Amino acid sequence: MKLIGNCVIALSGGPTAVINASLCGVIQKAIKADEITGVYGSLHGILGIIDDNLVDLGKENPFELELLKTTPSSILGSCRYKLKPPGEGKDYHKILNTFKKHNIRYFFYIGGNDSMDTADKLNRFINDSGYDICIIGIPKTIDNDLAGTDHCPGFGSAAKYISTTVAEIKRDANVYPSSQITIVEIMGRNAGWLTASSALANITGEGPDLIYLPEVPFSPEKFCQNVSKIHKEKGNVIICASEGIKDSEGNYIAQLETVQSHDAFGHAQLGGVGNVLKSLISDIDKRIKVIELSIMQRSSAHLASATDINEAFKAGENAIRFAIQGSSGYMVSIIRENQNPYLCSFGLTPLSAVANKENKIPLNWINSEANGVNQEVIDYILPLVKGRSDFHEDNNGLPRFANLKKLPVKQESIKDEP
Amino acid sequence: MKLIGNCVIALSGGPTAVINASLCGVIQKAIKADEITGVYGSLHGILGIIDDNLVDLGKENPFELELLKTTPSSILGSCRYKLKPPGEGKDYHKILNTFKKHNIRYFFYIGGNDSMDTADKLNRFINDSGYDICIIGIPKTIDNDLAGTDHCPGFGSAAKYISTTVAEIKRDANVYPSSQITIVEIMGRNAGWLTASSALANITGEGPDLIYLPEVPFSPEKFCQNVSKIHKEKGNVIICASEGIKDSEGNYIAQLETVQSHDAFGHAQLGGVGNVLKSLISDIDKRIKVIELSIMQRSSAHLASATDINEAFKAGENAIRFAIQGSSGYMVSIIRENQNPYLCSFGLTPLSAVANKENKIPLNWINSEANGVNQEVIDYILPLVKGRSDFHEDNNGLPRFANLKKLPVKQESIKDEP
Repeated sequence: MKLIGNCVIALSGGPTAVINASLCGVIQKAIKADEITGVYGSLHGILGIIDDNLVDLGKENPFELELLKTTPSSILGSCRYKLKPPGEGKDYHKILNTFKKHNIRYFFYIGGNDSMDTADKLNRFINDSGYDICIIGIPKTIDNDLAGTDHCPGFGSAAKYISTTVAEIKRDANVYPSSQITIVEIMGRNAGWLTASSALANITGEGPDLIYLPEVPFSPEKFCQNVSKIHKEKGNVIICASEGIKDSEGNYIAQLETVQSHDAFGHAQLGGVGNVLKSLISDIDKRIKVIELSIMQRSSAHLASATDINEAFKAGENAIRFAIQGSSGYMVSIIRENQNPYLCSFGLTPLSAVANKENKIPLNWINSEANGVNQEVIDYILPLVKGRSDFHEDNNGLPRFANLKKLPVKQESIKDEP
Repeated sequence: MKLIGNCVIALSGGPTAVINASLCGVIQKAIKADEITGVYGSLHGILGIIDDNLVDLGKENPFELELLKTTPSSILGSCRYKLKPPGEGKDYHKILNTFKKHNIRYFFYIGGNDSMDTADKLNRFINDSGYDICIIGIPKTIDNDLAGTDHCPGFGSAAKYISTTVAEIKRDANVYPSSQITIVEIMGRNAGWLTASSALANITGEGPDLIYLPEVPFSPEKFCQNVSKIHKEKGNVIICASEGIKDSEGNYIAQLETVQSHDAFGHAQLGGVGNVLKSLISDIDKRIKVIELSIMQRSSAHLASATDINEAFKAGENAIRFAIQGSSGYMVSIIRENQNPYLCSFGLTPLSAVANKENKIPLNWINSEANGVNQEVIDYILPLVKGRSDFHEDNNGLPRFANLKKLPVKQESIKDEP
């Protein structure tokens, strides 16, 4: 049976530079699809569906929709909200009510592994409910830690920002005749892909001297030895460290000195690893600079990768294609068809195979000293940073981001369930 | 008497995204000038001249020289070195020896107000020494605090980075349904131009709610009231604060909690004002994010302003033009000929009128609540951020910066003083 009805799109988890590009792909393709009658957006992820807080994306200006490709963050808002096991609590029934009320037959959830957990639970509940709806996940995370896909939209742009910025920082750090140690703190709780991407800059000699990743145990003693050796040789040392590096017992290095809080998924909210590392090497040099790439590494649309924008957009388009072909309960995945020249296609992975899993850097891609990466990492990431974004500036040279009207969706008569 | 001989160029003070563009302008114009026989660079500012550490820029690959326009930081290195009063100590005689040894007849110093102090002292010493040499300063500073020029090369690019990045941060900060306060810490010890440039993003509705500048006293009480009011109205608050904000007695707010060090010019090395501000408002919201734009605001060549690159380059070219016309003891200045359409020309200001002075934001350009800027600031900065840099990436999408051979200059026979 071919489903005909409205679709709703929601965005969840941490923002990226290209999550709106996936949204754009979904909207533009959905508008053209005969099976889809109305294109709605949910405000703040699954919360907008629970609370019946939908907007009519079909009423947006096409120019503004096109600008989504280069607008950072999530224009429909986001959430970090964990659903209870399928069927438990009131949320599922509220969701079902919203779906029925607005004749929603297609649900697209753009997000990371926590979001795919939400989509998977919802899919399992809906399958038992008797309500016909197609549920498709669209991958999104700067962390690149989603299982079941070669890589994730959002990662390429963050990797481009990190490798370019580290190169610029290195040029700056080498300017004075005196020595200096620079510590760059990069996001990544358990997967080191973002920090590893700093190594790309080494291709042109602009990269870091030392890279520390969460996949391998961090030894404070070896760290001091590593830094001391390079400091003696070169004077200037550039260190890139993941916020999530842990000691051999699995304790976060950042927790050595900082007070922690936890998010709704129970993940420790990290920060401050740079200052902990600085304290470890304070006797090596008095000039130690700690730089946190902070929010900029996920929001710098001005330096987004053209490859990443294109893939994020196509992931959205393919979600519609797969949905109207009748697939449900899957996440769109990216398949690397060829490495050189780089070529990818889009497939499907069951949501249950993605939910709550983490794709980390293979240990044999990390060097034996646990302070750098091997060529495999470079080869893997390099195609993803290619190309400059067609970033929109207004006549003044300022960013011109999309602005949506977000008109509320009114209840509509349900066509096929009167 | 027309001087004929070699020229030397040195770069000093903190790096910018476009200081190498000025260097490029000097080199490319000097190579074509009949009066200039060899084009040399001094490594690490005045130190390279004191220590006779010169490189032959005439032997560099023209393609690499062209890349200087989009290469951040100072490719010849820099220094923070304060000369003693004219004639005192050994430095002046070492400098004179280097000039004589290599028949240097033109000296160009690219830098900020401390660098113009160096050029001015050297000019006064040289005038008394009987050695014929032309000394010209070229303005450079992201702080935009140089006297005697409408604005400074380097500022426009930093302003573009700050306004764009603050807009991206604001989009990111508004993504969750819960409230959040974001504090963006921006460079600027005594002049607030950089922090004020965040206000440009308000033209398109993407700017900060509150701006705190070093030009006006900072009141912790008013700050808490300001933040609390906006927090109640909007939930999300974006604050941009200069590292150099001071209380009514002139004490740096950053010094309330952080340990300070001083550079060679006796300037306090600031940092950490964001965390001090956070501590003041910790009872207003539990989600307070501090973001330091750090080195990125001065080194992000990837987001340099095309207007700024062009003006930096032309400032270098004009230095040669004025020098071979016989001017000496001046800094190249930028004159705003017209506001709309924006048009500038290049003139000269005596080095003595620039050295050690600071150009701050006029007090009547700051709002009466001392938490934002008036339209005059926007009108003044806006033309300087216009246009995207033709930033060079290699085939992989990575930055391609200039690499110079830096071949040492050998002693040459002095032609006109045998």
